[in-house]
Amino acid sequence: MSHHAGRHFLQIPGPTNVPERVLRAIDRATIDHRGPEFGLLGREVLEGMQAVFKTRSAVVIFPASGTGAWEAALVNTLDAGDRVLMAETGQFATLWKNMATRLGLQPEFIPGDWRHGADPAAIEARLQRDDKHTIRAVCVVHNETSTGATSRIAEVRAAIDRARHPALLMVDTISSLGSIDYRHDEWRVDVAIGGSQKGLMMPPGLSFNALSDRALAAAKQSSMPRSYWSWEEMLVANKTGYFPYTPATNLLYGLREALQMLLAEERLENVFLRHQRHGEATRRAVRAWGLELQCVEPAEYSNSLTAVQMPAGHSEVAFRKVVLERYDLSLGSGLGKLADKVFRIGHLGDFNDLTLLGTLAGVEMGLALAGVPHQAGGVTAAMNFLATGTNEATRTIRTAA
Amino acid sequence: MSHHAGRHFLQIPGPTNVPERVLRAIDRATIDHRGPEFGLLGREVLEGMQAVFKTRSAVVIFPASGTGAWEAALVNTLDAGDRVLMAETGQFATLWKNMATRLGLQPEFIPGDWRHGADPAAIEARLQRDDKHTIRAVCVVHNETSTGATSRIAEVRAAIDRARHPALLMVDTISSLGSIDYRHDEWRVDVAIGGSQKGLMMPPGLSFNALSDRALAAAKQSSMPRSYWSWEEMLVANKTGYFPYTPATNLLYGLREALQMLLAEERLENVFLRHQRHGEATRRAVRAWGLELQCVEPAEYSNSLTAVQMPAGHSEVAFRKVVLERYDLSLGSGLGKLADKVFRIGHLGDFNDLTLLGTLAGVEMGLALAGVPHQAGGVTAAMNFLATGTNEATRTIRTAA
Repeated sequence: MSHHAGRHFLQIPGPTNVPERVLRAIDRATIDHRGPEFGLLGREVLEGMQAVFKTRSAVVIFPASGTGAWEAALVNTLDAGDRVLMAETGQFATLWKNMATRLGLQPEFIPGDWRHGADPAAIEARLQRDDKHTIRAVCVVHNETSTGATSRIAEVRAAIDRARHPALLMVDTISSLGSIDYRHDEWRVDVAIGGSQKGLMMPPGLSFNALSDRALAAAKQSSMPRSYWSWEEMLVANKTGYFPYTPATNLLYGLREALQMLLAEERLENVFLRHQRHGEATRRAVRAWGLELQCVEPAEYSNSLTAVQMPAGHSEVAFRKVVLERYDLSLGSGLGKLADKVFRIGHLGDFNDLTLLGTLAGVEMGLALAGVPHQAGGVTAAMNFLATGTNEATRTIRTAA
Repeated sequence: MSHHAGRHFLQIPGPTNVPERVLRAIDRATIDHRGPEFGLLGREVLEGMQAVFKTRSAVVIFPASGTGAWEAALVNTLDAGDRVLMAETGQFATLWKNMATRLGLQPEFIPGDWRHGADPAAIEARLQRDDKHTIRAVCVVHNETSTGATSRIAEVRAAIDRARHPALLMVDTISSLGSIDYRHDEWRVDVAIGGSQKGLMMPPGLSFNALSDRALAAAKQSSMPRSYWSWEEMLVANKTGYFPYTPATNLLYGLREALQMLLAEERLENVFLRHQRHGEATRRAVRAWGLELQCVEPAEYSNSLTAVQMPAGHSEVAFRKVVLERYDLSLGSGLGKLADKVFRIGHLGDFNDLTLLGTLAGVEMGLALAGVPHQAGGVTAAMNFLATGTNEATRTIRTAA
């Protein structure tokens, strides 16, 4: 690979660009995780995460990837052989379903075309038919990172309520938390799953569960074998800001700094508006190029990433290779059955207008260089939109909500 | 707490002091974990970890604490209800046993007095009686962090061989790896468990399994539910330096730097000699103070930490509080049934003669300040020993091995 001057553009849909001040916070001497200073840190990040999830219930922090917090959600609440209803929104929903199978559960997959979010009506219909209430949980990926479709969790909640079904609601917020509005308590979600390396602007290595009283009650009944993922000891130790086993101390330093930025400085509502603007600007660029969005439902457009279909006969792998080599820009690949068919632009985390325009310029020049049929003008379309300020973006949010 | 000038002394038995250059390595922009640059990093750290474990078999790296790698060892190789033989060396052996129970296994605990390592003769006798071979694994903590006793793994291996028993041998090397000699292949260990935050001089957040062919064969037969901890997909992805789910990229940067220091610069054999010298110097200080070592078997003295008994009627909690407040020195607490009865001095990781002497001075002055009966002269005894150079230390190793 030739020498690349300047800064790398990491525009995969996570891990995202870590702010320098978060990296600098991590870059401190490790402290005694049983000493008095640690308890303050622990309490501060646990409280901050409650604010990010918009919950007054407990949040649990694991030294693990998001995949681990998926497993924690399942093994803390269910019993072997339990039926869980999952919505096939894309690759991550599929991986979560595969995990459920491996763990001895019986997932039932509501089929999807990987171009929409979860269908609340289909969930409602299935729950209505389950008059014996054998379905123990409904699992939905809030923002499907493989397709760029954001499921309407408030509507899923309403669907479960209309069916008067007692299933727990579990929501994967890994690529939405801290970039797309998520309301744990208002939507009465029972277990949310989060990860550090997306909207939270952190390196990977921490993951989260936000709980509800019903989730805690289910945990008391659940007989699945668990130890590392068990909430029980975690919650006892967390009361004073400590952990039952060694936490990832340095990453917690970074999390404290990132929470300061998200909650106290930019503030969450502004973070969401910023992501909304960048999502809309990106979609305008894609339309100007004459390319097709993978997500076909405007109310479900993701504001943290955009998945773009490659024209037939063209390889996203070859295209991304050209873009990486020539412009030092990392884009997301097509995953699962979208492999070599879509590429993904991440526009989440610590990000601004000019970095987005640089990213879109890299895509536009890369399309030309790779000989992918398209029209120029995507960058111009995005600039024209961004120049109008945030009003239109704000209105769009209201429409989409 | 009053202002503390100068550097904090983190002398718990891990997390240990992270070298500045390791922190600086972690403090870099996160990269695409599916991009070409990552594969090189992945292969480099996986190969380096093989050298640390002294194995030609595969090593697996989890984004998790050491506790997670304990769980991985069990769930990858065993079946629900399986009998495992564990040696009660102290608190960490007890926690591992409790985990086995929670995961649905049947641990059988060979009782211990928390002052010795695992007893090879007791293991042999128990295996001899198990003529139906219902015991599936023997689990031993190499270096018991709660007591400062190092089990003789080569002798445990020989005991299993003499019993002609097919049980897998699993060894927790969390607080020995990279500080006390561990020989995975030579001792024919089947699963070793390691963590990043001790001899590897890293922050917590990574853990390891080193495998054997027999462990891999057991994994093919094992029916325990697993997903996050599963070796299978891990090993496939690792072949090219990648991971099946998001790895803790920034911690891997640090690991690469730490491996460079351990393997290429100081070199492992010298690392072990350094720890041997510091262990011996510390024990001489303890004897000079007239205090008692928790470990009573010289062949099992730990070279990574020293657990010291408090004189009857004196509280280690109160003593450590004085030491932390007055001298900004963190010592390890008494754990489990040793709570308030022993304190622990960590002398492992990135450490040298003068830092050890500062640490011992803090202990000696703290004993006086807290009114703990002792004789002065511990620091002097350690200085006298360290001044003689490494020859005696080397000879001591030969005696102890």
